[in-house]
Amino acid sequence: MTYAIPAPPQPSLSIVGDDAVFPVRRIYCVGRNYADHAREMGFDPDREPPFFFMKPADAIVADGATIPYPPRTANLHHEIELVVAIGHGGRDIPVEQALGHVFGYAVGLDLTRRDVQIQARDLGRPWDMGKGFDRSAPCSALVPADRVDPTRGAIWLEVNGERRQHSDLAKLIWSVAEVISFLSTYMELQPGDLIYTGTPEGVGALVPGDVVTGHVDAVGDLRLTIAG
Amino acid sequence: MTYAIPAPPQPSLSIVGDDAVFPVRRIYCVGRNYADHAREMGFDPDREPPFFFMKPADAIVADGATIPYPPRTANLHHEIELVVAIGHGGRDIPVEQALGHVFGYAVGLDLTRRDVQIQARDLGRPWDMGKGFDRSAPCSALVPADRVDPTRGAIWLEVNGERRQHSDLAKLIWSVAEVISFLSTYMELQPGDLIYTGTPEGVGALVPGDVVTGHVDAVGDLRLTIAG
Repeated sequence: MTYAIPAPPQPSLSIVGDDAVFPVRRIYCVGRNYADHAREMGFDPDREPPFFFMKPADAIVADGATIPYPPRTANLHHEIELVVAIGHGGRDIPVEQALGHVFGYAVGLDLTRRDVQIQARDLGRPWDMGKGFDRSAPCSALVPADRVDPTRGAIWLEVNGERRQHSDLAKLIWSVAEVISFLSTYMELQPGDLIYTGTPEGVGALVPGDVVTGHVDAVGDLRLTIAG
Repeated sequence: MTYAIPAPPQPSLSIVGDDAVFPVRRIYCVGRNYADHAREMGFDPDREPPFFFMKPADAIVADGATIPYPPRTANLHHEIELVVAIGHGGRDIPVEQALGHVFGYAVGLDLTRRDVQIQARDLGRPWDMGKGFDRSAPCSALVPADRVDPTRGAIWLEVNGERRQHSDLAKLIWSVAEVISFLSTYMELQPGDLIYTGTPEGVGALVPGDVVTGHVDAVGDLRLTIAG
């Protein structure tokens, strides 16, 4: 009386200069990891250390895609982020060894149903419906780790050619190495895990028809269109 | 300069009376869906409707397993739940059609790092590190949907033979059909999705060496051991 359920498609990212793909296992995200973004959300970065949340792996959207405006929100926000792809897993990874676990880097968007997230936050409820929805994790192709210095470089986002977010990786409160090390005390990191490392100030609303371009120096660009 | 990342193993559940397996795509969980559990956590069920959070699919643990006591907690809690497995996906599913989307039912444990979850909740932060950790989703084999009436039947949990949780599916605040319908307005449900439907009162701590048995009438039993 049962029927067969096919295995779901394996979410993956392409790799610059390589025919292989990177299979995405899990997606972790860091909250409030740039001081000016913490302030624009109403928090004191000196008293509010970053924290983690997740998106389902199948929320990945490839570079160049057009996605529908999501349901259950009237305030879809863009958050441009450096994405770290884990190649070698581990737990309790020391900070000084952490970058050796990185396979590569990408440009990501942590799309957020801001109204849903803020309502949940203010009630002390989980953020998942505001953060982990369908197509909420656009991500560019990966650049191999040895071509990127994740401690510096411009990160910016434009909507329809207008600059909305602009900062530098040097302003990350917790460095990539520190994020990997700390997260690995909560979970055993696995090959295929992604970490969205947080967004700088300037987050704001997207509307149908918007064309979004995100950029991280030495990593590349990510383009996304919200269907009109 | 890159190396190959193998695709991660596909999490799956066995199916009673069937050689096929059910591939797990995503795991959704309902919060505060029994009134007496909402009260024991300090909330008024008449003013606090249920809500949703997620666990990564690879948090699944099969029936009969022994798992290590997880890191970063001194207060690992058991939460026994009826688990719904989605066979036919959809969005904006009407309540009266919702049970037709169910492939089967299972007995699940929503393991919780309660100290981590409560700290996050009280700060308005995401619950993910308290709820979505490694091996946090033990789950029994699936029983086909046509053998289960999800509107009634005892649900209980024993630790080392002592009854800790005991209620009835008739006490779910939101029925299985209502949960499926409401969740499908936030996400497009997909074949392979699981929904943990919430836990009744009596949650409490597990310690190394504990043997846990969960039960749902017409669905079966789930056994889990915390390594000593």
